[in-house]
Formats: sequence, C-alpha cells, structure tokens
Amino acid sequence: MRVAVVGATGYSGVEVIRLLQYHPRIELVKVFSSSQDGVPLRRVFPHLTNIFEKELTLIQEQELIEGVDAVFFATPSGISKEWIPALIDAGVTCIDISGDFRLDVDSYKEWYKKEPAPSQYLEQAVYGLTEVYEAKVKEANLLTNPGCFPTASLLGLAPILKTDWINQNSIIIDAKTGVSGAGRGASLGTHYSELNDNLKAYKLGVHQHIPEIERYASEIAGSPIQVTFTTHLVPMTRGILSTIYVDLAASKQTDEIIELYKDYYKHSPFVRIRPEGEFPSTKEVYASNYCDIGLLADPRTGKLMIISVIDNVVKGAAGQAIQNLNVMQGWDQTTGLLHTPIYP
Amino acid sequence: MRVAVVGATGYSGVEVIRLLQYHPRIELVKVFSSSQDGVPLRRVFPHLTNIFEKELTLIQEQELIEGVDAVFFATPSGISKEWIPALIDAGVTCIDISGDFRLDVDSYKEWYKKEPAPSQYLEQAVYGLTEVYEAKVKEANLLTNPGCFPTASLLGLAPILKTDWINQNSIIIDAKTGVSGAGRGASLGTHYSELNDNLKAYKLGVHQHIPEIERYASEIAGSPIQVTFTTHLVPMTRGILSTIYVDLAASKQTDEIIELYKDYYKHSPFVRIRPEGEFPSTKEVYASNYCDIGLLADPRTGKLMIISVIDNVVKGAAGQAIQNLNVMQGWDQTTGLLHTPIYP
Amino acid sequence: MRVAVVGATGYSGVEVIRLLQYHPRIELVKVFSSSQDGVPLRRVFPHLTNIFEKELTLIQEQELIEGVDAVFFATPSGISKEWIPALIDAGVTCIDISGDFRLDVDSYKEWYKKEPAPSQYLEQAVYGLTEVYEAKVKEANLLTNPGCFPTASLLGLAPILKTDWINQNSIIIDAKTGVSGAGRGASLGTHYSELNDNLKAYKLGVHQHIPEIERYASEIAGSPIQVTFTTHLVPMTRGILSTIYVDLAASKQTDEIIELYKDYYKHSPFVRIRPEGEFPSTKEVYASNYCDIGLLADPRTGKLMIISVIDNVVKGAAGQAIQNLNVMQGWDQTTGLLHTPIYP
Amino acid sequence: MRVAVVGATGYSGVEVIRLLQYHPRIELVKVFSSSQDGVPLRRVFPHLTNIFEKELTLIQEQELIEGVDAVFFATPSGISKEWIPALIDAGVTCIDISGDFRLDVDSYKEWYKKEPAPSQYLEQAVYGLTEVYEAKVKEANLLTNPGCFPTASLLGLAPILKTDWINQNSIIIDAKTGVSGAGRGASLGTHYSELNDNLKAYKLGVHQHIPEIERYASEIAGSPIQVTFTTHLVPMTRGILSTIYVDLAASKQTDEIIELYKDYYKHSPFVRIRPEGEFPSTKEVYASNYCDIGLLADPRTGKLMIISVIDNVVKGAAGQAIQNLNVMQGWDQTTGLLHTPIYP
Repeated sequence: MRVAVVGATGYSGVEVIRLLQYHPRIELVKVFSSSQDGVPLRRVFPHLTNIFEKELTLIQEQELIEGVDAVFFATPSGISKEWIPALIDAGVTCIDISGDFRLDVDSYKEWYKKEPAPSQYLEQAVYGLTEVYEAKVKEANLLTNPGCFPTASLLGLAPILKTDWINQNSIIIDAKTGVSGAGRGASLGTHYSELNDNLKAYKLGVHQHIPEIERYASEIAGSPIQVTFTTHLVPMTRGILSTIYVDLAASKQTDEIIELYKDYYKHSPFVRIRPEGEFPSTKEVYASNYCDIGLLADPRTGKLMIISVIDNVVKGAAGQAIQNLNVMQGWDQTTGLLHTPIYP
Repeated sequence: MRVAVVGATGYSGVEVIRLLQYHPRIELVKVFSSSQDGVPLRRVFPHLTNIFEKELTLIQEQELIEGVDAVFFATPSGISKEWIPALIDAGVTCIDISGDFRLDVDSYKEWYKKEPAPSQYLEQAVYGLTEVYEAKVKEANLLTNPGCFPTASLLGLAPILKTDWINQNSIIIDAKTGVSGAGRGASLGTHYSELNDNLKAYKLGVHQHIPEIERYASEIAGSPIQVTFTTHLVPMTRGILSTIYVDLAASKQTDEIIELYKDYYKHSPFVRIRPEGEFPSTKEVYASNYCDIGLLADPRTGKLMIISVIDNVVKGAAGQAIQNLNVMQGWDQTTGLLHTPIYP
Repeated sequence: MRVAVVGATGYSGVEVIRLLQYHPRIELVKVFSSSQDGVPLRRVFPHLTNIFEKELTLIQEQELIEGVDAVFFATPSGISKEWIPALIDAGVTCIDISGDFRLDVDSYKEWYKKEPAPSQYLEQAVYGLTEVYEAKVKEANLLTNPGCFPTASLLGLAPILKTDWINQNSIIIDAKTGVSGAGRGASLGTHYSELNDNLKAYKLGVHQHIPEIERYASEIAGSPIQVTFTTHLVPMTRGILSTIYVDLAASKQTDEIIELYKDYYKHSPFVRIRPEGEFPSTKEVYASNYCDIGLLADPRTGKLMIISVIDNVVKGAAGQAIQNLNVMQGWDQTTGLLHTPIYP
Repeated sequence: MRVAVVGATGYSGVEVIRLLQYHPRIELVKVFSSSQDGVPLRRVFPHLTNIFEKELTLIQEQELIEGVDAVFFATPSGISKEWIPALIDAGVTCIDISGDFRLDVDSYKEWYKKEPAPSQYLEQAVYGLTEVYEAKVKEANLLTNPGCFPTASLLGLAPILKTDWINQNSIIIDAKTGVSGAGRGASLGTHYSELNDNLKAYKLGVHQHIPEIERYASEIAGSPIQVTFTTHLVPMTRGILSTIYVDLAASKQTDEIIELYKDYYKHSPFVRIRPEGEFPSTKEVYASNYCDIGLLADPRTGKLMIISVIDNVVKGAAGQAIQNLNVMQGWDQTTGLLHTPIYP
C-alpha cells in the first residue's frame, strides 16, 4: 500500500514516518509540506539521516490523487478540510490527525472559531477511537483521528460510561500534557526558559477538546454527558496523564471496576489495565501505542478515580492513526506498532 | 533573637538558613543534625561557602534549652515530637515544620501509622496558616507549620469556605508538586532517571495531608468538610499547583468571586489574587513566599475552578515558618521575606 | 540615584529590575521597551505583581537624558550603540549589557557582521570584568559589561594568565550554558521540545565571544593569547560551566595553584575558590552573583583543569552590571547583591 | 538461539530485554537478578506489562550453563568476573556489559580498586567496539562490551588515529552524559532535586574509563596515546556527547577529514558522519544504536574538533552488546537493531 504524509515537518507527521519504518505492508512514497519544496526531510530532522532520505514536496492535489492509496494529514487545524473533500471524492483514503473533522458544523464554529468543512464530509467522517469504534472504523474512507486529550480521557471513561454505576454529570477530567502537544511552532508558549521547572494551567474552560470529549462520551453513554475539563502544561516532552473523577452512584469496589475494564478491553491489545494499587506513569508508555489505566474506588469519598496515560505523539496522534489504517485495511490492528516503551 | 535549626541538612532546614540571612532581627546561632557532628554545613551544601560557615552539632536538649530563644524543627516525621515537649516546658519557642503536631491523636495514628505526641502538646499547638490564623499565631508558643499541599489548598479555599455559595462536599483538589517536596533522602522515588520526562500520581487516597486539609477546612467553614485529594509528581524541583474544583450552589460570576478573594486577603501581602482570565504558574512564585491564586466560575458547568500556586520549600515550609515567627514576635509578617520570585 | 532600564522585557532587563529591589541607594524610575508603550510590565511578567507596577515606555532620548542619572541597556546587539553616544555626550552614565562596545571596530564588523559604534565611544568604553578591572571601572562613564561566557572564562583564567606557569597558546575552553542565555525571543532554537533531554554543540568556531575572550585574555596576560572555545546548550534554564584546559609549563601542584587563585581574588567577595578535590556545579551559584572556581593540576597529563561556574543572568549579565555601577559610584561592590544561591 | 540476561533490574539489562523483543533469531529464556527471586520483572518495570511477563530468578551457575547458549551480563562492576570463567569453560558464550574484562590486571587494580578477573580470561576477552574490531569479535567467546564514554570517544577518534595528521598526545576529550549512565541505584548523586537544572563535572582525573580509552586508542594508533578526559553530568536521562580536541599536525580542511571518516566507516551502518557545518545533538540518536559524528578543522586555531554522540544505554551498552552477538553469530550486525531515533 502506497501512502503519503502531509505535514511532514511537524511532530505528528515525523512520528508517522518513524512508525511506518516498521510497517511490513505500507510503503511511504511521498512527504508533503505547505512551505518547503525540494528540501530533503533530513535537513529538517537530521535524526532521519540514512533512514529516510526523501525530499519534501509542496502539497498538490493531483499528486495526491494519482500517486497514493491513502494520505495521513498531520497538519495544523484548518488545513486538511481544504484538501480532503476532493481526495475523498477521488477515492483516496484519508486519515486526518488534525481536528478538522471531529465536530459538527456548529461546535466547530463555536470552539475553533473557523469555518468548518462541508457538512456532508463531516458526517461521513468516522471517529477513530479504535478500541471503541472498531466496527465503524473498518468501513471508513474518511477517518478523523481523536485528539490527544480525548484519547486518554475517553479510553479512561468508556467502560464505566456503559454502566449505570456512576452519576453521569459528575465527571471531572484534570489533564496534564507534555509540551510536544503544542506542536513545533516557535512561540513564547513553547519557549524552553518559560516552561522548564514550571507548571501551568491553560485554556481553562475554552479548550477545543471539551466538545470533542462531550460528543463522544455522550455517544458512548447513550445520553448527554457534560464534563469539566482542564489542561496543564508539564515540563516534559511527551506524555499525557488524565486524572478523572467520577461520583459512584452504586457501591462498587476497586476490584469490580478493574474487572469491568479488563472485560471491556479484552480484545484491545493496546489498553493495559493495571492491577489494584498500581497507577501508571507517562514514561511507562513512552514512544509506544499503549494506553495504561489505573483505577481506585475510594471508599472514603465514594469517588472513582481513573488514571489514564498515553504518549500524546503515538497513541494520541501518529500511532492511533496507523492503528486505524490497519483496521480499515482488515489487517491486525497491531501491525507495525508493537513497540516496547522506552524506559527510562 | 537567637534561633537554632534542627534538621539543617534537609531542604526545608537549609531554606530556613538561606532566608534568615536576610532577616534583620534574628541571629542563627546553631544548626543541629541527627547524624553529623562537627562537620561544617558547607561540606554538605557547598553553595553556602563564605555565607554560612558554622558546623553541625548533634542535637542535644540542654544546648537547645540554654542557648536559644526559638527553634525551627525541619525534621522528618516522628522526630520533633520527641524533643518539643521538654523545650516547650522550658519556655523555648518551637516552630515545627514537620507534621508531628498537625493532627489529633487518632488521626495521627491512622494516617501517619506512628505514635502521636502527648495530647496536651497537640492541643496547645497552633496551626500556622498565617493568613487565616494570625490572631492565634500571635499567642502561640508551639507553632505547627502547615504542610505544603494544605497551604496551597487551604489558601485557595478559605474565602469561599466562609460563604454559602458552594456545595461544601463537592471539593476536589488535584495537586501537583515538584520533587523537592519528597526531601533529600535518596530512593528510587527521587531518582532522576525515574522522574525526568515523567509524570505520575502517587499515594492516591492515602496521603497524610488529607486529614490535615479536612480538619482545617472544616474549622474554617464551621462545618464538616470532606475532600477528594490527589497528588502528582511533576518533573521539576520546586513548586506546587493545586487545581481545585467546587460546585457553585449559587449563581456567581468570576468577577464577584475575585472580589471576595481580594477582600478576604486585603491584609495579606503574600497572597496575590490574579485578575480575571489570568492563572498563575509555579515559576511565578519561585523561591518566594507568595501564594498566587487564579479563579474561574465556569458558566457552562457551574463549577468554580481555583488555581493556587506556591513554592513548596518557601511558603510551603521555611518561608511560612519565618512568617509565623514574625507574627509570634509582633513584627511585621513580611520581615526578611519580601523576595521577588526568580524568573525565569 | 535614579536609574532606568532599557530592554525591560528581556531576561537580563527583568533581572536588573529584580536585583534593584534590594538596592538601598538606587531608585528605578523608568523602564523602556522598543516595542511596547503604556503596558504595565507585570502584564509581560506576572511574577512582578504587587512588586513592580510601573508601565513600559517607548524608548526616548530626551526622557533618558533628563530623567535619570544612569541607564542600563539590556538590549539585543545593535541597539545600544544607536542611543549611547548621545547619552554619554549629555553626561548620563551608561552601562551596556549587550555586546555593542566590547570589541574594536574591526573585530565587531568581523564577528557581529554589523556596523560598529563610532570608534571614539568604543575607545572610552571600560570593560567591566569587575574583579580584574576595578580601578578602571571606578573612572568609567561608559561601561561595557562582559558577556556571560567571557565572564566565566576570564575569571577562571586571570590568575594563571599573570604567571609564566603555562603554555599560553594551549588554552581550550569547553563552555556549557543554560537556555536563558539565548534570550526570550521565540525560535526553534529555544523550543522546549527541541531542547529538553537533549544536548548540543553550537556556533563552533564562530561564536562572537571568541574575540572578546581573546582581547581581554591578551590584555591580562600582557601578550597575545589565542583560545579554542566551544559552546554547548544544556537542558537547564540558568547557569554556565566552563571547563578550561591549559598546559602547565612549570611543574605545579593543585595546592599551589589554589593558593595563587585565593591570593589573586582575596579582595573579590564574589569569587569563591573551592578547596582541593571540590568542583562547583552551576546550581551552587543559582540566582546569585558568585563565580565559583575549582582547580586540578593533573599529575598524569600535566594539564591544569579549571572549572568555573556562574549564573549567566546574574554574574553573566544583570548582577555584574549592578556590581559595576556600585564600583563606579564608589560604593561597596556588594551593595544590594549579597544573595545566597537558591538550592535546590 | 537461547539467551539469558543477568542483572535484569538495571537500566542496561532492561534495555537488552527491550531490544531483544525485535530480534528475529534470539529467544530470551531467562532473566536473573542478584537479589530477587520469583518476582515478575513487570513488578520492577511496569512498562513491560503484557510484553515481558517472565519472573526473575536468583543467579545460578548450573541454570546458566545448561539452559542457554549465551549470557548478557549487565551487572555492576565486580560481579561478572565471579561467574564468567566457569561459563566460558563450559562453552557458554558470554557478553559482559560491565567493565570487568576491559583492562589488564594492573590497570584494573589501579583504577577499579578491586581484584581483577584471572589473567587468562582477561587475555581472551575481545573488546567489542564493533566498528573497529569486527574481525576479532567474529572469533570471540568472551566479549567485553566497551564502556559508554569509550564508545563515543573511540568512534570519534579511530579514523584520525590511523593517520599521521595529528599530534597524538594533544587529545582532550570533554565528555557529557545523561544520568542513566549512573545506573538505577539510589544515591544523592542520582537524586532528582540535586541534578535538575544543574550541571557538574565529576571524577576529574580519576574516571575508570581513562585507562580504557588510552588502551584501545593506543592499539588503534599503533603507538602509546595519553588523553585528557573529563566527564560532566547533564540534566537529561539518556545521551552522551563527547567534544574532542586534537592538534592537527598537517594542514587539513574539514572536507578532507569528513571524507576520511566516511571512508573509514563505509561498512558501518550505525555510524553516521554528518555533512560539513552540521553537528549532531544527543536527541538525534535517542533510543537508537547510532553514533553520529560532526567534524570541524578550525582554520583559525589549527585544532580538529570532533562531536560524537550516542545513546549511552543503547550504543553505549545494550545495543552494542547485541550488535556484537550478531557479529559473533555471523548474522548481519544490524539484525533487530535498526530503530529510528525517538524525536522529539
């Protein structure tokens, strides 16, 4: 299978390229950029020396339509919606790692403050939270890959959302992320001296992942879910840890809940439910496609606490995108993705 | 005034020593250790070369009673309770930075898993959350300095606890700390390669600061308060950020709440309430005695979100201890403590 | 004394402001910026809330001439040379933290690739390596503050350069710096995800501090000195460590060399020579004006190794600038500057 | 091929385990520890959950001799020399990642301050700097894997040592390492708060890698080489960067030297010589087996500067060990080792 990456100079793009080196059934034939033409990608990323020596090409519709079977879009928001409709019409499989196809028309306008993609394409886009939507993913041509925070949060919540054990409107998600989630663009907000040895909350109440989490949490639960969601920037490169608080409506113990989660994810090789008393750290999934989950039903307060960790660049972006392509092609979902986390 | 520091080789102890260099009314005459005798402190902490050249002495009751007017205990839990009763009986002012005198007999046993101090001393200990308990602190002989997490959390909560604007049993505190809070002892839990570029939750549901927060939150509110409290270890040296979630029972807007907080802290020079839309980061109080607080009443969810940051070694330990001694002596509480945060 | 800071939104500028809070004889009356007018500095640096509440003013010659006695320039290279000549002519004392007045006409052109300041001003500028040039600094009106790398390197070399114990053309300086030395401008070169957990060499053979080191090393030695100098970017915010290698021409032992250094710096309170076998780390001078030096004459190889550390923002910029103003005014050089390093 | 790892709870050991997951011809059948018996390795390293579920066994000679074809020793110094002689005598292939077999009897005593292994085993041990000693490695039964600093340093020096272009006794190696090189043992020297945002030199003049570098540099050059070698601890987890300074005796330009290096390493897929003007950073080889080298012949000073970077846990330990086993078995040296560096 011949694929291309659009947005190869960003972190998600170059991670798709890294992971595809291990994929036995995919050939990466083209890498596109919106600004650089004819420059070897290794000049931008010298770590690819001798590993990937292709040149960047300016993005061009005809080349995409004729040259490849599938395209990964790893672009900033607002770009992929300009290109994907024509590609879909031409029969090219599209996997969009950006947020352009995750919301409906109104929500996109409200939260992204931009014009959305045409609604017929929004409607046919399948949300690629693989572990939850595998059946739909199999049938997708236009796959919208989940955001990094929604991935960690929804995987942490899905099994319990399917039950009547919780007070559904009590959900609080306190999310923490490494800096790579902000992309490779230079700004004061990604400046080393401003972030090192520092911790801050940001975008309180206005983060564009709020409507995404609520949309799919509601879909999973089968009833409207509203969440409180905050994000914090942690002085590290990779990793997301979501601490999720839910009021238990029924009296449940930790081991019952662990059992529920293990059962829900029994066919999901990338989700690892930790034993009682063990909570994952972000480094324990570093550079891998795993989502690790620890659980505690606190008998003192009646709260369920869920710790869910991912590598934001892999399971939160490039890895899950390839996992979805695997499913779309009918291959084993782990093809080319079974990497041991880098520790320490 | 002649003072001594017991536990001078730990981080809180050496921070007391640093801060006392700037104090115009205190002379630091002795530094004690539980293990080293006759060793210059600069051999343990070479950054003190030419600044503080005294030697460590093994802790001895008689020397403490005769030689000084006040003693700071910056010791691991379980130590100060062995020494303080005799000192108090002998009329020496004691300021305990450890947790030995913060709880009642039963809570201490339950959460610290150790024998508590005799109850008559526990009862006379005054809790030194200066901004809240200034009147009592003025009269104290035995001052128990608040824990680092309780300081950030209770200062973030105090004004709203005094109102009927909230659902009092809805409080969730998601706390994040730098590694210096774990002290200077070497263990896998403080090992650089295990913590760098890593984020983890720890002591979920069992942290000894839970009963401390609940005890004083209840006292401030005038009714029993139970909180959900979690702690996370962030790859940075100093700083605590507490993200606090409270259900607003009354319909209140952010500016009203900011006004409430500004009024409550109008005589508290170390608490800085941020303007609407601005949330503090830990680095903005680095190496200073400030506690900065940002507030948001989210109209979408009806939640109040409070971001409260401190430097755990200063306001969360050594700085607040000196602030309390200032109050106990009738001096201006800022004496020797008005430092600009180190930024970046 | 009334002073102003030009370039208050950069790291050196805001550090001058921090340090002047502690200065008993200086009033900071104005802060200037090249781009912002009427904006409170606390909006740029919220850590200054309640501490420094003045507004930024666009830089204006007349205001500088009439309103203040001395001006600190903490500007990028190429700015101060546009303003200083007129100020000097008007009798305003100028302290330039940038590199505009450190080289002669030809060297400036060659290494900075810009037009130099007029040569008469270059000639009257006094190089403010305080410990070495104190007598000249006393007489200066136009003070050019040393670069961060030259400060650490020249203080590490000065005593031995005055002797005939070394092979003068054998000097190699392997310098390592934290990221704050690159300033507050956002670029890929200061991007967190690019620098964290990463180490790199940069500007090999072309760093503009090479001619500065060689000029003053030659002046100190009394004969032409050429050095090999490299720089490395270390994932930390503050601090410079220079590892200096020199061939010993004479057979000298470590203790003799330590004696030489102690004697040379016996009237220099900010230089601390470490005892034999002890080598300073950058954190041991963090946020202070100290330069700490460790020495080893390796009997195996006949090399002298010098480890010299400073905080680049303090002794390498703002602190040394104030130290120089103290000397220029005839005050004790430590006035307002005796801070204990922040550790840990 | 059945192999075992002794010392599986350390960083080199667990990295051998990680890398062997990708090896098509090796089965990892046993993991040994000196202190833990019957404990699943995933309890020590939860990132191995579902990936490697074997239990640790206390090290036992008979099990090693009977159960496996080859053993990796990833033990602290002084351990492997107790076990390897018997294994070698029994025909088991041994690959020692520790330093026990790298020096001769006298040097080992002098620098390690311990009793060396019996001299006949020291003599038959082959030094596994694969790119230089491939022919000997092919014949080895007892392979002593190079130290992390010697690997980066000797690969950076080997091509030029074979020429007469340099002054052979002018070599200075200024090495910088991440903290994982210090192992997983907890001590003040690996304590997060002591190392974060800090840089220090250590073991000046007494590092046990000095005699190792000199021994093999001399062997490569064919004449005695003495080097000046210093080490610095950098606040990062993985990575070594060696900055090497050599006096050029002959007038050579950078491009000629790059040509020399490219030619020398033309059959070495893990060494990447960078183009002129480009210098590698440690992150550009993160978690991979590459050694990247940048070169500059400085026309101003006549010095050759060599920047050589590796991941100390991979090319400096576990990766090179597997590369050596590949060569010993006659397989392609890259088998199971072609990983793209993790960036960012």
